[in-house]
Amino acid sequence: MTTYHAPIRDFQFLLQEVFKVQDTLYTLPGFEEIDDDVVNMVLEEGAKVCEEVLHPVNASGDQQGCSFDDGMVTTPDGFKEAYQIFTEAGWSSLSLPTEHGGQGLPETLNFVIEEMTWSANAAFILCSVLTRGVVNLLQAFASDELKQLYLEKLVAGTWTGTMCLTESHAGTDLGLVRTKAVAQSDGSFALSGTKIFITGGDHDLTENIIHLVLARLPDAPEGVRGISLFLVPKFRLDSNGSPGQENGVSCGSIEHKMGIHGSSTCVINFDAARGFLVGELNRGLPQMFKLMNLARLSIGLQGLGIGEVAYQNAAAYARDRLQTRSLTGVKNPDGYADPIIVHADVRRMLLTTRAYVEGSRAMSLWTGIQLDIAHAHPDEGDREVANDLIELITPVFKAFFTDMGYETATLCQQVFGGHGYIQETGMEQFVRDARIAQIYEGTNGIQALDLVRRKLFIYEGRLPELLFKRMDQFIAGHPAGDRGNEFAAPLAEALTTLRALTQWLMAVAKENPDELGAASVDYLRVFALTTLAWFWAQMGYVAKEGEDNSFNTAKLVTARFYFARLLPQIEGLDRGIRSGAQLLMELDESQF
Amino acid sequence: MTTYHAPIRDFQFLLQEVFKVQDTLYTLPGFEEIDDDVVNMVLEEGAKVCEEVLHPVNASGDQQGCSFDDGMVTTPDGFKEAYQIFTEAGWSSLSLPTEHGGQGLPETLNFVIEEMTWSANAAFILCSVLTRGVVNLLQAFASDELKQLYLEKLVAGTWTGTMCLTESHAGTDLGLVRTKAVAQSDGSFALSGTKIFITGGDHDLTENIIHLVLARLPDAPEGVRGISLFLVPKFRLDSNGSPGQENGVSCGSIEHKMGIHGSSTCVINFDAARGFLVGELNRGLPQMFKLMNLARLSIGLQGLGIGEVAYQNAAAYARDRLQTRSLTGVKNPDGYADPIIVHADVRRMLLTTRAYVEGSRAMSLWTGIQLDIAHAHPDEGDREVANDLIELITPVFKAFFTDMGYETATLCQQVFGGHGYIQETGMEQFVRDARIAQIYEGTNGIQALDLVRRKLFIYEGRLPELLFKRMDQFIAGHPAGDRGNEFAAPLAEALTTLRALTQWLMAVAKENPDELGAASVDYLRVFALTTLAWFWAQMGYVAKEGEDNSFNTAKLVTARFYFARLLPQIEGLDRGIRSGAQLLMELDESQF
Repeated sequence: MTTYHAPIRDFQFLLQEVFKVQDTLYTLPGFEEIDDDVVNMVLEEGAKVCEEVLHPVNASGDQQGCSFDDGMVTTPDGFKEAYQIFTEAGWSSLSLPTEHGGQGLPETLNFVIEEMTWSANAAFILCSVLTRGVVNLLQAFASDELKQLYLEKLVAGTWTGTMCLTESHAGTDLGLVRTKAVAQSDGSFALSGTKIFITGGDHDLTENIIHLVLARLPDAPEGVRGISLFLVPKFRLDSNGSPGQENGVSCGSIEHKMGIHGSSTCVINFDAARGFLVGELNRGLPQMFKLMNLARLSIGLQGLGIGEVAYQNAAAYARDRLQTRSLTGVKNPDGYADPIIVHADVRRMLLTTRAYVEGSRAMSLWTGIQLDIAHAHPDEGDREVANDLIELITPVFKAFFTDMGYETATLCQQVFGGHGYIQETGMEQFVRDARIAQIYEGTNGIQALDLVRRKLFIYEGRLPELLFKRMDQFIAGHPAGDRGNEFAAPLAEALTTLRALTQWLMAVAKENPDELGAASVDYLRVFALTTLAWFWAQMGYVAKEGEDNSFNTAKLVTARFYFARLLPQIEGLDRGIRSGAQLLMELDESQF
Repeated sequence: MTTYHAPIRDFQFLLQEVFKVQDTLYTLPGFEEIDDDVVNMVLEEGAKVCEEVLHPVNASGDQQGCSFDDGMVTTPDGFKEAYQIFTEAGWSSLSLPTEHGGQGLPETLNFVIEEMTWSANAAFILCSVLTRGVVNLLQAFASDELKQLYLEKLVAGTWTGTMCLTESHAGTDLGLVRTKAVAQSDGSFALSGTKIFITGGDHDLTENIIHLVLARLPDAPEGVRGISLFLVPKFRLDSNGSPGQENGVSCGSIEHKMGIHGSSTCVINFDAARGFLVGELNRGLPQMFKLMNLARLSIGLQGLGIGEVAYQNAAAYARDRLQTRSLTGVKNPDGYADPIIVHADVRRMLLTTRAYVEGSRAMSLWTGIQLDIAHAHPDEGDREVANDLIELITPVFKAFFTDMGYETATLCQQVFGGHGYIQETGMEQFVRDARIAQIYEGTNGIQALDLVRRKLFIYEGRLPELLFKRMDQFIAGHPAGDRGNEFAAPLAEALTTLRALTQWLMAVAKENPDELGAASVDYLRVFALTTLAWFWAQMGYVAKEGEDNSFNTAKLVTARFYFARLLPQIEGLDRGIRSGAQLLMELDESQF
């Protein structure tokens, strides 16, 4: 059985010591009532619900899974009760707008809680995460009438929401969507078609489910410019706004998946279902993508959260498990063997996980703060810069965190030896649950393409330099001699590599667009490792200059480990990327 | 549904063109009757049984799994029939000695067939692989009487064998084994204790199961020097040598695992079971380890085999799946989208898999040839050198092939996008089945420790240089200008790195043994990547100088891809390793 303890101290360190939310967050308009006490209370109460309500049904939810019978999905035992506790306490609406019943707290705090929930129970939290996406989308684009009818219930978690995008022939390429929407005389639309891979498409947690569906009018233009977005409830609302008659929405089956068994993944059939246009006709895709970016950050947090819980369990096991003796002599003379944590290689696995997890957590909270600035800062210029940084970092956040989630869950499973392969230790569930995050909400290959193809080039290419200049400033603030350039110097070296690689890539891509695809995934990795180095440098100096205590020592050692053992990967990646696209494109399809 | 086609052409290329078995293998004593026709026939017939008998029950075996009821294990539907066809045709005894009914063919050929079987059905083949290990062990150490009674049936596959090593508190550290063996007046021993993780510990494929059990006599010395090896049949043999009465051996339960569901992993209880000493008293561990090395090579082949079958299915999907358009313009104007193989990043995933799989296959067959030389070469010096090379390469073969098996199966799953996460495409099974190979038969961490702690230092440290000098010779044979040093030059560069790193490691380890553990896993990776570069260089030149056909072109491009994109990893690893052990050992256990 696995356990989970929310890393509260680490959150406090980042918020209060590294990012100084006292000056950067509490001062924003709307957050005047927030102070350290409020934040600490949210952390502690959030930890409690994750540790005591969500995590206890994580393994049982995996083993039992969702079931499908007679057109209905049943969630695993305990999910319904956990859902009620979780939503009634307001955890699913933490950063949602107060006007529809949300708590209106900073997105930064929501990131904290969301990471905890992913750690505690990934399959459980998916539904709430998607519902939040639906709320944001309706908030941004829906008519007042639709807002009036649906938002309060969605914010409260009384109903959940889904995003119905994928069809069997249309995944990455949503321009291929074939679901039809036919205008009705009353202003509504009749939707017909079949969507697949719909997370939470059906379940027994709530009495209604609100689908956001991409569909095409009969006379719509071909491709991506002919797709509109519709709100389609499972049950139509009666005159009181309560779920009434059925609406031609049915669940055809659920998928048998590698993991996240506690979350239903549905085939949803729409049979002349009544839907309502959200936003403008034929603008469905850009509207959806605006919000998908937020969902992508959430999925990044899935990787981070699973890495954290896997780490905790692996570290505990490494301290407890007695097996063989240390290479430098007996360390536990009273036992029949030493705990395996005496071994440098076991520590390498744990420190690798920790360096990725804690580095990613810093990037996560920094991104949360940018979201709050983008939303609430009084200065338009500041808001724009924050928005730019978020746009740039989103694909890196999603792809890198989820790649690391899978890699570190695998490393932590390895710490358990043979016991890690057995279901009952729970480690293999973390690996299986982490795997999907590299795939959904746009595969990590698509994220990498978004970074190199779009984010490097839009706005006259100003985005990457915006971030790089922040690093320049940081480096300039840490010259040799003074506070020491222990971390600033290797960061500067990595940044030089990344900057030159970026310029090289932008140049060669102008000649041959395939260079983008050839570089994309490895380039994103170089980008992420360098950005993580910036965050590790920030944390490293705070820990070095802070109190001499156990927490700071561990942080400092982990920072040093990151620079010594993990950052050097970028050298080989840089060299590999520069070999270019030609080799990749040379073979004929039939030669594969 | 997945498919599998044995890569016969690639095996032929390696055997006949790269390693020239006509001169190196067919000429060995005992193999006089082997020629290309025999080899081709074995390849084709082996392919047939793997494609038509084993692979069709791979997915169903995973979904159904083994079941445990009333003390008995039932294998999935179709396994029993497949087992009968497979063993009756002699595939499980291909390289086993003729004196007990084996085919006496070269180990090299067995490696070929074994890779195919791992591709076709990993869960199925485990039992036969372990049985072969048991045969080899009995052949080497058992009394003539035991050989007489057991070998023929084990060679024929009429019975299967197991290796009962692990106990719940004794995995990596077998010196902790507590199972007791008490000498009886008739020369036999009464064994009592509980073993866990016993692959094929019980099943319904054969009427008897022969366990090789590590146990300790009451007066045996503590630790590794007090462990003996016993043969314990599930059913005692009657006077005709047929299974008779029960022997106090029972299956307590089977594990629920991440993968290899078609293979039973058992808790086996011995309750005064009658056993027979194999080899010398208290020499159980060294005897077992001698043979575990062969089993480790088999498990390496599991990684390779799964990588191959995952590749085949991903390549087929990438050619078929239509989605989006190429970055350089429409490639499939008649379709609603282009096949995803037009994308450089999809090709990167496929070529990465292929470069690891085909490079590993070369290392595999080279190792097979060394095994045959070590066994059959008339010159003692040649046999010794071959033995040395096998000893050195075994941990690299096991750890690297299985790490790559998991990584490439994951990459190939990624090619499928969301469909790869669904059970019915079969890709996620490859990932789950590949995962165990990094763990069992000694975790890959243990393999790495074996490499740096033992293989670098034994025999006055002559092993690594033995291999490095072969590479030197190869490099010297490919100077610039003449046949071109396209591959020899980067190989020389990598070898320089590896050699210097080896010397550095051996030096620092003398001061601090923890340096070994700190370096081990990453060092093994550098070692493997460099060795693979040697094999890719060999293949690259053969392809470059051979006929101008599609096979050779693909091989040449893949060789270039390996040197350009994958080999450069060693730079970052080298730098990381040299940061040493201190950082890893600095934190207190409680700080993890």
